[in-house]
Amino acid sequence: MQIIHAVEHRRHAGRVEMNAGRLVPCFETPQRVEIVLRHVDDAKLGPIVAPRDFGLAPLERVHDPLYLSFLATAHSEWRATHGDCDALPFSWPVPGLNRIRPAAIEGRLGYYSFAADTPITGGTWSAARHGAWCALTGAEALTAGERLVFSLSRPPGHHAARALFGGYCFLNNAAIAAQYLRDGGAARVAVLDVDYHHGNGTQEIFYDRADVLYVSLHSDPVMEFPFFLGHADEIGAGPGEGFNLNLPLPRGTGWPDYSAALTTALTRIRDFGADALILSFGADTFRGDPISRFLLDHNDFSRMGAAIGAIGLPTLVVLEGGYAVEDLGINTVNLLSAMQQ
Amino acid sequence: MQIIHAVEHRRHAGRVEMNAGRLVPCFETPQRVEIVLRHVDDAKLGPIVAPRDFGLAPLERVHDPLYLSFLATAHSEWRATHGDCDALPFSWPVPGLNRIRPAAIEGRLGYYSFAADTPITGGTWSAARHGAWCALTGAEALTAGERLVFSLSRPPGHHAARALFGGYCFLNNAAIAAQYLRDGGAARVAVLDVDYHHGNGTQEIFYDRADVLYVSLHSDPVMEFPFFLGHADEIGAGPGEGFNLNLPLPRGTGWPDYSAALTTALTRIRDFGADALILSFGADTFRGDPISRFLLDHNDFSRMGAAIGAIGLPTLVVLEGGYAVEDLGINTVNLLSAMQQ
Repeated sequence: MQIIHAVEHRRHAGRVEMNAGRLVPCFETPQRVEIVLRHVDDAKLGPIVAPRDFGLAPLERVHDPLYLSFLATAHSEWRATHGDCDALPFSWPVPGLNRIRPAAIEGRLGYYSFAADTPITGGTWSAARHGAWCALTGAEALTAGERLVFSLSRPPGHHAARALFGGYCFLNNAAIAAQYLRDGGAARVAVLDVDYHHGNGTQEIFYDRADVLYVSLHSDPVMEFPFFLGHADEIGAGPGEGFNLNLPLPRGTGWPDYSAALTTALTRIRDFGADALILSFGADTFRGDPISRFLLDHNDFSRMGAAIGAIGLPTLVVLEGGYAVEDLGINTVNLLSAMQQ
Repeated sequence: MQIIHAVEHRRHAGRVEMNAGRLVPCFETPQRVEIVLRHVDDAKLGPIVAPRDFGLAPLERVHDPLYLSFLATAHSEWRATHGDCDALPFSWPVPGLNRIRPAAIEGRLGYYSFAADTPITGGTWSAARHGAWCALTGAEALTAGERLVFSLSRPPGHHAARALFGGYCFLNNAAIAAQYLRDGGAARVAVLDVDYHHGNGTQEIFYDRADVLYVSLHSDPVMEFPFFLGHADEIGAGPGEGFNLNLPLPRGTGWPDYSAALTTALTRIRDFGADALILSFGADTFRGDPISRFLLDHNDFSRMGAAIGAIGLPTLVVLEGGYAVEDLGINTVNLLSAMQQ
């Protein structure tokens, strides 16, 4: 399989994030991708390829152009006032206030986000664009006939909505790739999201559409981030009704229950008649993950890969979360190896 | 004049707040009230009186009872998981997500807030209730015939909405007092807000009502917190249309322009035919304030007090912001002394 990787991901290296009332070192680090890269290289899963530059057009198919402009200049605007520290938002237009676009950068950070856990650094925009281009390069390879491609996109993407960053995400790599496949002629694309957290951004982007099915297994948002999306009764709207399937699972879920939900998800994808599959792959379902509470073992990622591979669709795997860094490499290789069988 | 003060305000002493991408020591400190108290005592402005316990009923006239229950238990719930550190939210139900009430305390902190600048401590609920009772005790004194009362409420209140904390505020002391006056028979109550920041909470609470006029002079939200409310075109809704007057002013405003806007505000209050006035008094319009950008001098607070006193309404002054701590005492005494003339 082709593995798409851009060195520019390293330019996004946030110092601190808000976590449980404290500013702590970021969990979402460059080291994550470096370790995955080493593991997939050691396992000789396939050639490691750099992405090509797709420009902004395919990003604008999914994201608000004004949001992209904001991301492009946010840190330089912030630095002009606050010096060379990471930019973090601190107030948000929740219901009761109005979502009016402020002029001040401090206000626009809140206007374009939903969480305080995602610093914008001087290199964020470059890293995020290259991450999206990794996903697009992978999608292009599927279009050219590849059956399985792994895009080592970083920062992750599934929490990024049309015009919101948060949850360590800026550009929704999986959604951008899904839209690219649609624009390239695929009639139906399925996104399967197996990250521990619900992919609120991907759901939002495709919520009213029947051509992209979003299916997510995740920790129940009554207890877990992102809290405000990911419930079972969110089934899509308008033409998209029935094309959003959330399978929230309780904290403490291990393989038996996870596997049952995965079967439900894969059955829905089969019934949908997808031409291609995007797998939003987070390994934070691993039992050793420092910020998550599922109990999957290394071997369970092999089982997961085998089950997903068995549906026989051309598949682009896009990296999302996973913060037990050494294990992230093992779990990713286990998944990909099993998918390749 | 009576001065209402509760020692319990000291129990709310947050350690850190999010400010410009960093966690910094809280600007909103117990020292603020201690210094104001010393200054008003030295100036012999009047007897210092403790508040009486009004229970929760008058708070529930303004705030969602479920929000009050949340405030009552938030820190103990937080402490059970995170230990004895201040509770801070980190994700919010902005448009694009749904305002669904999570079970996890980490999620409910975001559900009930709009900013990351307002820690909940072990003593917050006690302090906030006593702060509201200070305002209520002051309102009760007006009802009994007093012409001028100063409620040293802390934490401040004007950013607190029906079910939202943020901007250092939990209970909207001024709104609670205004509602109490209405319930006690005043036909029309005006709230004049001269804090540097727009009182988004007070506006939200009375936005669709014609019986409580809200008038605010503040730094233009295109550049300043709270960013997402406080624009000139927010004039009230439904029966409340025409009963919300925002007078946003640019950063760098000094007394001449401030004074002109104050005249507009007082003319509107006079025309309204208010039976009583609540003054949301923040002294962060002072030129030395560490987080604000207006240029009022010590003497300007005397001028402000004289202008407000001249409209001749029974008036309850409720403390809001002001973070140049020593000057806060001087500016408050200047205002109150001039009002008393």
